Amino acid sequence: MKEFIFPMRIYIDDTDCYGIVYHANYLKFFERARSEWSEQLDYGLLKQQEQNVFFTICSAKLDYLKPARAHQLVEVVTRIKELRHASLIYDQCLREATTTDTILCRAEIKVACVDKNLRPRKLPKDLIQLLGE
Amino acid sequence: MKEFIFPMRIYIDDTDCYGIVYHANYLKFFERARSEWSEQLDYGLLKQQEQNVFFTICSAKLDYLKPARAHQLVEVVTRIKELRHASLIYDQCLREATTTDTILCRAEIKVACVDKNLRPRKLPKDLIQLLGE
Amino acid sequence: MKEFIFPMRIYIDDTDCYGIVYHANYLKFFERARSEWSEQLDYGLLKQQEQNVFFTICSAKLDYLKPARAHQLVEVVTRIKELRHASLIYDQCLREATTTDTILCRAEIKVACVDKNLRPRKLPKDLIQLLGE
Amino acid sequence: MKEFIFPMRIYIDDTDCYGIVYHANYLKFFERARSEWSEQLDYGLLKQQEQNVFFTICSAKLDYLKPARAHQLVEVVTRIKELRHASLIYDQCLREATTTDTILCRAEIKVACVDKNLRPRKLPKDLIQLLGE
Repeated sequence: MKEFIFPMRIYIDDTDCYGIVYHANYLKFFERARSEWSEQLDYGLLKQQEQNVFFTICSAKLDYLKPARAHQLVEVVTRIKELRHASLIYDQCLREATTTDTILCRAEIKVACVDKNLRPRKLPKDLIQLLGE
Repeated sequence: MKEFIFPMRIYIDDTDCYGIVYHANYLKFFERARSEWSEQLDYGLLKQQEQNVFFTICSAKLDYLKPARAHQLVEVVTRIKELRHASLIYDQCLREATTTDTILCRAEIKVACVDKNLRPRKLPKDLIQLLGE
Repeated sequence: MKEFIFPMRIYIDDTDCYGIVYHANYLKFFERARSEWSEQLDYGLLKQQEQNVFFTICSAKLDYLKPARAHQLVEVVTRIKELRHASLIYDQCLREATTTDTILCRAEIKVACVDKNLRPRKLPKDLIQLLGE
Repeated sequence: MKEFIFPMRIYIDDTDCYGIVYHANYLKFFERARSEWSEQLDYGLLKQQEQNVFFTICSAKLDYLKPARAHQLVEVVTRIKELRHASLIYDQCLREATTTDTILCRAEIKVACVDKNLRPRKLPKDLIQLLGE
């Protein structure tokens, strides 16, 4: 199955007074990586709006394995775990960019496909092809 | 001139790895105070939407005087500095809740009145009355 | 088992361009509620620092049931699901303040007790008593 | 005078329910650009810690000219406006990546040099050289 690698740096706004990345912010990193993947597949936000395809988060499971710190270079690795009619499950992790064995945080994110009124709808066929190839 | 006092606590998500409130977050505190004031004046977001009245930020000046820290009890003090046809200038500060002489951050925020398409429009008369009384 | 109710309002900074609360921000609400509970129990951040007791998040499971929107009045309900030697599991939900049957988001958050160097340590006995009573 | 260009994309977490970038978040973009510049000059956070050199924000002036939107490609342009003994003033703007004439937000940020206890200290000579060359 395809995977998408999104390199990024941790900045000060990502951290908290314990000197590490604030736990909610990993969800931002994972979302940015999914968004960037959509853009790379030429199925970014503008196309989504044209096609009346939007995504909402149904559920998220996060395991915090090792704290990330300011100015660290990291990567988000994103894979599709499951592709259903109206939803998909992403398997994502944040790892160190230099020591790619070192996983900092792992997540499973379930996303539903909805229309602009937030009502469930099928995933478009062309998107299924792009993601599932 | 009227003033509105908004008590709040600093939480961990407001801080950064220097152990103090991240500088961008003061703008959030000031916006929450302005929003809460609108709600108290019965001119909150729902009424604004009904009346096709929205607000965008034109400019902000911030002076950071003393760092705020996690779990501190603070207050945002909000006053109208100037009330124009299509904009208003707020004078706001964040101070310690117990030692109200201790100002932590001071701001001047200029806000423009716009319609839902972000085009300038006059401030509604009833809102001018509520704010200016 | 005890529960702690934390009333709050959704502000504009909590939302995203879909017009609803950005999914990562629910984790902030849950953390603020846990922090506030600690303060109410007189076991807040300052006492934690004195006692060399800190908390890190091990894992989080979130179910997003109904989107929250700007200016909504909501409540975080927090319960202890499990109290172990060096960790605890919180059961938390965000619900509408007026219609308390309407759950917006549900979470299970596992928190580990650590010292200032982020090394595991036992939960202090007095804290166990305060939380478990 | 030198300038540093930091390319970035706007993501969903940067936006609010008005469909545009939340006004506080521009300060994050400007800080990320300053941080990245320090890293490029080989005077990043780790070196700063070694040298007991830290930076706090004294003041910020922001002009919001045109709203930025989700998934837009933008650039932060950073210049030193003034270099003093113990502080410096940055001139920064956010512009569209494709139409670089289109300035979205402009800022002047005054930063003070402090030690780890947040007490004022002189800017190190080697940093002055790196920034001022």
